[in-house]
Amino acid sequence: MVLVSPRNPLNIGAAARAMANFGFSRLDVVAAFAPTWREARSAVGAPDVLLNARSMESLAEAVADCALVVGTGTLAWRKPEQAVVSLPLLAPLVMRELNRGGHIALVFGSEKHGLTREDLSYCHLLVEIPTDPAQPSMNLGQAVAVCLYELAAHGSLPETPAKGETLTTQPGSRQASATEQKPAATSGRLDLLAGLIEEVMDAAGYSPPAMQPANRHDLRLLLRRLKLSTHDTRRVLGLFRRILWRLKRAPVPNSGLR
Amino acid sequence: MVLVSPRNPLNIGAAARAMANFGFSRLDVVAAFAPTWREARSAVGAPDVLLNARSMESLAEAVADCALVVGTGTLAWRKPEQAVVSLPLLAPLVMRELNRGGHIALVFGSEKHGLTREDLSYCHLLVEIPTDPAQPSMNLGQAVAVCLYELAAHGSLPETPAKGETLTTQPGSRQASATEQKPAATSGRLDLLAGLIEEVMDAAGYSPPAMQPANRHDLRLLLRRLKLSTHDTRRVLGLFRRILWRLKRAPVPNSGLR
Repeated sequence: MVLVSPRNPLNIGAAARAMANFGFSRLDVVAAFAPTWREARSAVGAPDVLLNARSMESLAEAVADCALVVGTGTLAWRKPEQAVVSLPLLAPLVMRELNRGGHIALVFGSEKHGLTREDLSYCHLLVEIPTDPAQPSMNLGQAVAVCLYELAAHGSLPETPAKGETLTTQPGSRQASATEQKPAATSGRLDLLAGLIEEVMDAAGYSPPAMQPANRHDLRLLLRRLKLSTHDTRRVLGLFRRILWRLKRAPVPNSGLR
Repeated sequence: MVLVSPRNPLNIGAAARAMANFGFSRLDVVAAFAPTWREARSAVGAPDVLLNARSMESLAEAVADCALVVGTGTLAWRKPEQAVVSLPLLAPLVMRELNRGGHIALVFGSEKHGLTREDLSYCHLLVEIPTDPAQPSMNLGQAVAVCLYELAAHGSLPETPAKGETLTTQPGSRQASATEQKPAATSGRLDLLAGLIEEVMDAAGYSPPAMQPANRHDLRLLLRRLKLSTHDTRRVLGLFRRILWRLKRAPVPNSGLR
């Protein structure tokens, strides 16, 4: 989450607390007035989220590694330059990006003015909290809490969409989604693959026994990071089975020296 | 919405603001410390919700006309005496009661201790905001905002269910729902009935005086669990009035020995 130019230390604290409440951990604060930032971090009982927060000079820097940047605020008075989605509909878009492994940034502007036009130019998408037109403007800490609640509580992965179905209406997206939406390999398949790769490592004398627990751990993580599809997994299994067969059949290198 | 014993005027203001943001209008504040209450109402820009709020002595009084009273708070450390529902699942239950014409109260306790055991005994149902177990406790103003957002954004009144249609899938629910659609008894009617049953218990010498507070507590919970309709309540009141009349008229057992 990114706070741009927050003015009230209490609001920075409230935002950090809501993050802790809903299990979010990465907070960047952009262009904070130095005394405000110091005061917020020195508050009694400041959550870890706040103590670990980064203070950055620019929004561009804060969101550099994100694949989806979502701006927030009351948009009634400003003509948005990108798509606006109502908060209850945001979760599927975020989940899709998360599914692809992208980082997401949710960006909040200052209490007084919200995000500037330049800030907004870094956003792929704007989100609007559906408030009463008679009182649309929310307190910053409350707006943060509501957005994070929505993503945490309603962002659990929906059922796999039907074949060829896609969440966007962009031209060309159908093809992209066909690639993305291949079913991911199950954890059991990945464990089967990991076991086979371990056998191969062993047969190849890849690493000393003392390293094996660490290697197993890293391999398990690596395979999950790769987001292999079921189909991919089958092919990789085939390859490693072939490798294992060859290794066991082949003379052990340097065996003549024993 | 009902706030019980709020300690911080800023939180009362924040709660009122969230109500205005999400289109809620009736606020009752129970057992507020007088200076806290004055300060909250005199804040610059206090929304109409706050200016129109009522200050009451007791929760019983605040929820007397409500057919469904929903308590809030972190329940991890307390064994609840009634059903607990996660916030994302609350809206259909609230909508069902609203459809029947009943009033709903959402009750928040003090910042420090939440709702007391006695407060909770007036609740038909408890709602839990799904927070991270590592940091479950929310700021009051943020908790209010999240609950009201959920009800406003995800609780939009569904089309009136078709005749005989029901929200449950219990066997026999079709028939049950026909019964359910009758308005539930208000909290005040249940208190009237509870008072009468206590009189009967007393007249019947049901329990020693030392047990009466515990009995009163259990009776309050029991009556809410039973989900009596207004009609049921009238009949049960009639029965207990008759019983009470007979008890008072009958000779006290063993009175001949006095």
